[in-house]
Amino acid sequence: MNDRFLRACRREPVDTTPVWFMRQAGRYMADYRALRERYSLLQICREPELAVAVTLQPVDAIEVDAAILFSDLLVPFTPMGLDFDFVKGDGPSINNPIRSPADVDRLRRFEPRDALGYVLETIRLLRKALEGRVPLIGFGGAPFTLAAYAIEGGPSTSYAKTKAFMYSQPAAWHRLCRSFADMMAGYLTAQIEAGVQAVQIFDSWAGALGRADYREFARPHTTRIFSALKGSGVPLIHFGVGTTAILRDIADAGGDVVGVDWRQPLDEAWETIGYDRAVQGNMDPTLLLGPEDRLFAGADDVLRRANGRPGHVFNLGHGVLPDTPLERVQALARHVHETRF
Amino acid sequence: MNDRFLRACRREPVDTTPVWFMRQAGRYMADYRALRERYSLLQICREPELAVAVTLQPVDAIEVDAAILFSDLLVPFTPMGLDFDFVKGDGPSINNPIRSPADVDRLRRFEPRDALGYVLETIRLLRKALEGRVPLIGFGGAPFTLAAYAIEGGPSTSYAKTKAFMYSQPAAWHRLCRSFADMMAGYLTAQIEAGVQAVQIFDSWAGALGRADYREFARPHTTRIFSALKGSGVPLIHFGVGTTAILRDIADAGGDVVGVDWRQPLDEAWETIGYDRAVQGNMDPTLLLGPEDRLFAGADDVLRRANGRPGHVFNLGHGVLPDTPLERVQALARHVHETRF
Repeated sequence: MNDRFLRACRREPVDTTPVWFMRQAGRYMADYRALRERYSLLQICREPELAVAVTLQPVDAIEVDAAILFSDLLVPFTPMGLDFDFVKGDGPSINNPIRSPADVDRLRRFEPRDALGYVLETIRLLRKALEGRVPLIGFGGAPFTLAAYAIEGGPSTSYAKTKAFMYSQPAAWHRLCRSFADMMAGYLTAQIEAGVQAVQIFDSWAGALGRADYREFARPHTTRIFSALKGSGVPLIHFGVGTTAILRDIADAGGDVVGVDWRQPLDEAWETIGYDRAVQGNMDPTLLLGPEDRLFAGADDVLRRANGRPGHVFNLGHGVLPDTPLERVQALARHVHETRF
Repeated sequence: MNDRFLRACRREPVDTTPVWFMRQAGRYMADYRALRERYSLLQICREPELAVAVTLQPVDAIEVDAAILFSDLLVPFTPMGLDFDFVKGDGPSINNPIRSPADVDRLRRFEPRDALGYVLETIRLLRKALEGRVPLIGFGGAPFTLAAYAIEGGPSTSYAKTKAFMYSQPAAWHRLCRSFADMMAGYLTAQIEAGVQAVQIFDSWAGALGRADYREFARPHTTRIFSALKGSGVPLIHFGVGTTAILRDIADAGGDVVGVDWRQPLDEAWETIGYDRAVQGNMDPTLLLGPEDRLFAGADDVLRRANGRPGHVFNLGHGVLPDTPLERVQALARHVHETRF
């Protein structure tokens, strides 16, 4: 088995830097687009054989050192009573967003082994299909990011509704985030029992918060998930975007591996995070849209800053963009494997 | 004349911290919405009497220490040959975005005193109407941000088209940014001649760039504008959002005053920028959507971190949001004026 990725997560020496890509399965792949002509995103998430097929597409096409379960951050919303759908080009839209404390109290608890059994079945099928080729990563959302989706109900750049709720209804906010934290702890535990070999927690929108707000409104709930998963034995990855100003606090919240976006050079970020953690990142995903020499120079810069220190997982600072040519992603993975500094 | 704002820009002692708000004239004001029922945004920008009226609305309603010309970053696009309009809720949409080097070469140069005479006339009328009550701020866009608008053509969160152009067509990119820099230097010089008493350069989207990219693709062109305006005698303000990782480089690019967003505490940001510059910021604009005690606590935190050091202009980290209650903005300005640390 290729265990480079798991070894790097544990800061053990590796033969070469492991690499995987956020959104390595998705729109940029012709195979994925072909499947999406017949099935919606949610149909693929809910049908284990389809989700397995999509998860494996990049594992077959690209030299990645990990597979990541194909699913969506919001699948737990349905059993909680939050109805959502995907609006073309705009991402998820929640039909009954949370706007009041009473909305928070209407959220339902659920047993992931029943309500999200299809995800767990996907994981079991994937472990068989992968036959140990590469490890399988499971994932879920951090409470702040899930709350932002639930409250905004649609795309936002300012997170105005989310923050207004947080400032105006702090008790209901904390109840909401605690529900999400407990739900995620149970759901991720079930994913681990079903067979995922690492877990990534996405706090995609945490970078919208100032530091004091992150500490008051987000961090305690994220910590609750990491604490619950501590004894699970699998590496835990903690990822956010635009987090330069709160990176130390993100690291304090938890995670064996901390994800870094492209804004800050990796060596500085690692120093802030602390060398007792592994790091994941941090190339600008738009470099995959330009010429190959610049792409490789960008990758080399990341690798040079990692400086051969055990505990670096190569990744982008955010997901692969829809217009990315597959050949570029293939070439990048090869280049990372062939490069030593 | 109330010259608190200009004195703080020059790091001179002031009786109390000066305050103004980005987008202090806009949708959150009933008077503005009433005018917008009859006129489009561009009609207001292009008709000096309307632009004067809108500029003065917050000066009359709120204890602000500066007026900012009501206009739009994109008004220079029209005489350059870039056709745009505002799409409700989505911001500007460019009908003929820049997608190739040939598109760059088609851009026209223009004489601001002719093509943007309506802006200069607005400034002259404003100076008369203000009668020295508060200073008047002019503004323009930094080359990277203007290029991002011109290339994306509409809203974006990834700036994928912009960065793909920048990486793939660096020569054309630099020609484009140099055109924007020369255009802005001329336009802002004309604004200063017409009477603005300070200038703010908005590099609103610079925070999307990693540090090496900011240095290569954005900074030289922004510096060109600041160099051209150096002898103008008016304070120059340099503002961006999400710039924690590039704040030192933003400061290096130029500006007597550097704008800081809310993500990083002001004292840390000021240390990074250097005490030989004034700073402007940096309260989270969403605090205006919550309860008053939390709003005042947020303002106090900013003022405490400024620590009475000469050279602090109180502002938000970004513009006033559309749902903001006017009473909150009024109360905030009063609170800043009444508070000493």
